[in-house]
Amino acid sequence: MSVGEDGTPVGGGRAGWVAEALREHEEQDERERHDHADVGRRPLPADREQQVLDRIDRARRRRPKVREERITMSHGAGGKATQTLIEAVFLDTFRNPRLEQLEDAARLDIGGARLAFTTDSYVVSPLFFPGGDIGDLAVNGTVNDLSVSGATPLYLSAGFILEEGFPVADLIRITESMQAAAAVAGVQIVTGDTKVVEKGKADGCYINTAGVGLIAQDAPELGVALARPGDAIIVSGCIGDHGVTIMLARGELDIEADLQSDTAPLNDLVRSLLAATGGVRALRDATRGGVATILNEIAKSADVGVLVREDAIPVRTEVRGASELLGIDPMYVACEGRLVAVVDETPRLLVQSGLAGRACG
Amino acid sequence: MSVGEDGTPVGGGRAGWVAEALREHEEQDERERHDHADVGRRPLPADREQQVLDRIDRARRRRPKVREERITMSHGAGGKATQTLIEAVFLDTFRNPRLEQLEDAARLDIGGARLAFTTDSYVVSPLFFPGGDIGDLAVNGTVNDLSVSGATPLYLSAGFILEEGFPVADLIRITESMQAAAAVAGVQIVTGDTKVVEKGKADGCYINTAGVGLIAQDAPELGVALARPGDAIIVSGCIGDHGVTIMLARGELDIEADLQSDTAPLNDLVRSLLAATGGVRALRDATRGGVATILNEIAKSADVGVLVREDAIPVRTEVRGASELLGIDPMYVACEGRLVAVVDETPRLLVQSGLAGRACG
Repeated sequence: MSVGEDGTPVGGGRAGWVAEALREHEEQDERERHDHADVGRRPLPADREQQVLDRIDRARRRRPKVREERITMSHGAGGKATQTLIEAVFLDTFRNPRLEQLEDAARLDIGGARLAFTTDSYVVSPLFFPGGDIGDLAVNGTVNDLSVSGATPLYLSAGFILEEGFPVADLIRITESMQAAAAVAGVQIVTGDTKVVEKGKADGCYINTAGVGLIAQDAPELGVALARPGDAIIVSGCIGDHGVTIMLARGELDIEADLQSDTAPLNDLVRSLLAATGGVRALRDATRGGVATILNEIAKSADVGVLVREDAIPVRTEVRGASELLGIDPMYVACEGRLVAVVDETPRLLVQSGLAGRACG
Repeated sequence: MSVGEDGTPVGGGRAGWVAEALREHEEQDERERHDHADVGRRPLPADREQQVLDRIDRARRRRPKVREERITMSHGAGGKATQTLIEAVFLDTFRNPRLEQLEDAARLDIGGARLAFTTDSYVVSPLFFPGGDIGDLAVNGTVNDLSVSGATPLYLSAGFILEEGFPVADLIRITESMQAAAAVAGVQIVTGDTKVVEKGKADGCYINTAGVGLIAQDAPELGVALARPGDAIIVSGCIGDHGVTIMLARGELDIEADLQSDTAPLNDLVRSLLAATGGVRALRDATRGGVATILNEIAKSADVGVLVREDAIPVRTEVRGASELLGIDPMYVACEGRLVAVVDETPRLLVQSGLAGRACG
């Protein structure tokens, strides 16, 4: 669980963080000054702070450019390269205000209705893994993208790209899993498409789902750009379960762990959170790129700093252990059923909303 | 053009078609009776007709079942195997009234608005071909699926599956082509997703587009199931251009022809057709499976027969020639900018709607 019994937040861009960072910085400077007794060659602490902040600011304002000539795996990993590709290619070409928000779903006004619209392709390997498969992943992922945009998920499309030779029994298993996930989330799969590509030109089965949801007329405006200093950031459960489960399920590593994907729909949790407090600024589901990537998006979009208390973020022993062996940081590992919420109040209230009791076993 | 100067329809399930078919049948029987002077061993003509019709009827009512254990290319070709896969797997699992219409787009009522929602994945090879590329194809295809459901196409999503090593310059060329097509059709690409798969696990670039459109409150109900005996069927231009262009562009055949894809948005044409006559029963865009597959869908959904005057269907000399060499029927070859309309009146009126003058060069 992300909110301790005393209501301690996981992390938060608090009003005092700058003062705190400056104080730590000054203390360190003071120590160094004491150690070396060498003040003259170093600029004043406040100036150095400003230099660093200026440098970050210049880097943020730089026009993104894809420097590689060819697509690499990192362009799909959800991190910095993905972000650059999105901004330098897709955003630059398709430029329009609805896309530019870069939220998990676009918000549209059509025929008097406020809608959320989103899409995601699923290319997970292996297709079946502990705790789920590509089918429920494809439904839950799009349900969650709609939920975190403040919409009630309603209808999904399903586009299949199948590799010649793919077992029909596996396809049936996947569609049954999709239907079960749709039933749990209360959505319907209403339109679809199937393409078959030659053997060796897909990895068994790729699925795209797009989704449409309804945003209530009185729904709060949400967006990572709305985060303000002093807000708290909440994570709804253990992080990294899905990503580590997939890495282990590939069988390339000689590690075994009693772990399963966290794939789950978040619409119920979002509904109860929005009902519990009017102070929600932004919601995200932590998928590719993990929780850390969302924190970066918050910092960049809202032009704020994010203070993370890493020891307050729940990580299962198995995830921590596997991550250490793999040399990765659980903060950057994918989840598929974890909500990240930015709220404008102490999270004590949120304990009442159903986030409490979501213990990380 | 599908409508001759005298207003002759391409084909039509006319009131008199059964009588005509029976008369032809009786004439043939009469000839055979004359040739062989052998009447006793054959059932009466009317009985035989009924037997054939009964057999077709039984086949239609049979519960579809995928007999193959593995997916084959034919499951993606848009013909009978695709139809069986859709009905036996997707329809059977996802069963709900919106999906069961099996139209090009689902019709949804959300927040007081009537919407159309559709999806399509594009896996064309080669990615660039005379007259277009995967980018404008992906935009036009979804624009057309929305248009033929009687909706005004508004917003599209774009999901990319890229193969590791894919040239960034090609991706930029594709997105620019998508943006140009979106501008022509008057739609916006408002949400997207990018995944990268390992080298050898995709064919460069696959694109999924989903689309949302608005159906006017006074829009006519449309659907192939509404076709009735006596209706005329119109095709908006030459058929098979796209499919044959792609086959030739693959370069596997030693044929050259001055031919290009017919990829184009149909929303303007649909709008003017619906404005010209209140008698439109159904609209389809002829893609995979060609015009013949649509005629089959009409026959099956509406439980009617379709009479086709093949010589009234416009086919370019190059398409006819290449089809003959390849041993395929242009009626089953893909188009990407051809409207098939079922109308409840003589098509003379439609000549005024902008369908006239669409000469097949």
